[in-house]
Amino acid sequence: MTRIVVDAMGSDNYPTPDVEGAVMAAREYGAEILLVGDASKIQPILDSSDGKTLPIRVIHAPEMLTMHDKGEDLVMKARHKDAKNSIAVGLDLVKKGEADAFVTAGNTGAAMVTSLFRLGRIRGVDRPALVGPFPTATGRCLILDIGANPNCEPLNLQQFAIMGSVYAERVRGIQNPRIGLISNGEEAGKGSELVKEAYPLLSNAKINFVGNVEGKEIFNGHVDVAVTDGFTGNVFLKATEAVAKLLIEKIRETIKGGNLPTKIGGALVRPALGSIRKMLDPSEEGAAPLLGVNGLVFIGHGRSDAQAMKSAVRVAMAAAEAKVLDAMKSAIEESLKK
Amino acid sequence: MTRIVVDAMGSDNYPTPDVEGAVMAAREYGAEILLVGDASKIQPILDSSDGKTLPIRVIHAPEMLTMHDKGEDLVMKARHKDAKNSIAVGLDLVKKGEADAFVTAGNTGAAMVTSLFRLGRIRGVDRPALVGPFPTATGRCLILDIGANPNCEPLNLQQFAIMGSVYAERVRGIQNPRIGLISNGEEAGKGSELVKEAYPLLSNAKINFVGNVEGKEIFNGHVDVAVTDGFTGNVFLKATEAVAKLLIEKIRETIKGGNLPTKIGGALVRPALGSIRKMLDPSEEGAAPLLGVNGLVFIGHGRSDAQAMKSAVRVAMAAAEAKVLDAMKSAIEESLKK
Repeated sequence: MTRIVVDAMGSDNYPTPDVEGAVMAAREYGAEILLVGDASKIQPILDSSDGKTLPIRVIHAPEMLTMHDKGEDLVMKARHKDAKNSIAVGLDLVKKGEADAFVTAGNTGAAMVTSLFRLGRIRGVDRPALVGPFPTATGRCLILDIGANPNCEPLNLQQFAIMGSVYAERVRGIQNPRIGLISNGEEAGKGSELVKEAYPLLSNAKINFVGNVEGKEIFNGHVDVAVTDGFTGNVFLKATEAVAKLLIEKIRETIKGGNLPTKIGGALVRPALGSIRKMLDPSEEGAAPLLGVNGLVFIGHGRSDAQAMKSAVRVAMAAAEAKVLDAMKSAIEESLKK
Repeated sequence: MTRIVVDAMGSDNYPTPDVEGAVMAAREYGAEILLVGDASKIQPILDSSDGKTLPIRVIHAPEMLTMHDKGEDLVMKARHKDAKNSIAVGLDLVKKGEADAFVTAGNTGAAMVTSLFRLGRIRGVDRPALVGPFPTATGRCLILDIGANPNCEPLNLQQFAIMGSVYAERVRGIQNPRIGLISNGEEAGKGSELVKEAYPLLSNAKINFVGNVEGKEIFNGHVDVAVTDGFTGNVFLKATEAVAKLLIEKIRETIKGGNLPTKIGGALVRPALGSIRKMLDPSEEGAAPLLGVNGLVFIGHGRSDAQAMKSAVRVAMAAAEAKVLDAMKSAIEESLKK
């Protein structure tokens, strides 16, 4: 049975959505859940969720990391041998082999830093990357890095490409995934210095590299994975989220402020607009994998509800069952031989 | 009378939209137009546009730059003393003081490189920047650079901020424009090395610097100008264009494939969706200013129609009449004194 650690203290409305989502995942997917956090807060929700017969264990962690944990203070909490915060305690379960993956909707920075210190990195990977699954005309495109590393070297991008390729193939079931390099032009010579130097490294890697891509290729579904540095990836993520939100608000506003036929039309198309919102909803995907650390880590949005937490556990299970960590390790080892 | 040079050979469907747009601008805005390009191709369109009484002159330029002009070959054509391509001939008219601004819908790279060689730079500006006017919840946000410089130094971003501020104030009439620095987080310490080093330079400039911004702040209308390097700006531009296009297509598709009430609703909201498309339509703005070269240059989309060309001339006129070039020169001089 696949064992997933769920941080009960992660989401903005912790621990209710975190615990309820974990219960739903245990019930629907048959996951074994290790709930980490303040036991006195977790237990009442667990009791009222009618999950007594489910394979759920509570691991007490009296402390928690919050949005205020950053800088040196965070590093201290992340690396302390006897750390008692839920993220560190949860990650140690993965480290010790007592669980297969870790899921949190907590502070992304805190989760990344703590993962790095508690799990270490995959041999040959210099920097881990956070992966964002973006909606496209035909499905999803994985973009990495969306924020772990604002400054990258060309070799980092090659490692991201290899890990992203393995992840897309193993976890998302895409045969020979198409990998693109985000640039300001499709031609091979186009790009920042970083992109120009990364291009030959991606060409030489054992991946299906299709060259530079722009927004068009990503949202058309022409690539399965798009590689970039964490600064560009994060700007990309925030920009597309914001423009999509603006557009949907403008449409709603225009319909609301329109004449009677427009208002009637608006009411009639509402379900259709709902399906678009669902496509854009990050909770459909649950959480972003952090690739490159020596263990499976999934970081969800702070706004995650129980549904999103459940989805996050599903994705973590799929990754564990696909043995994607071992596959990434082999692919990276292979790349070091050349 | 403000004199605008229009490249008749720029747009994908040259010279018809270019010439027709110029005629419309001469008629509606009273601009004096200098149409540069192949006279034998321009004249018939001019004759059929009923513009004989308008202040339009044709300047013959037998050659043209195309999408295929790049690299060293382009540099040669851009700098050649006796260059006969329409962009070079048109820019020389501005250089010699025979015109106040230059408008083209031609190859962006070719227009930038030729501008740099024919006009030179404003004293104190190391790199020119291309400015994109993005739609927001409350109006427009100017983003620069959207593609002139894939690699930037911190000082370039300070210069972009000063020029963008002057442009927003003079041409768009915004009092004390709010300037943001695009980053992967709003906090002052967040960003790539470039952003971290640029932050204090923007803080010290004589502008209304409001700090780091993400997509949210830009599309909410919290800043009037957002500064970034040309790689990030271009990725931002292409990503937001592509996601907006995907969204509108998905909505159309969902309505089309929906049940009868949804289809009826779709027909009723169509005018409302049209107004959203108009908001996103780059032809509303006409063209992007290239700031930092020693002359007023506006570069439109290759897909520009006559309407877009007309808008481009309107924007170029506004910039010339606002004496924005002189104001930018003074502001940059001022910044050098410190």
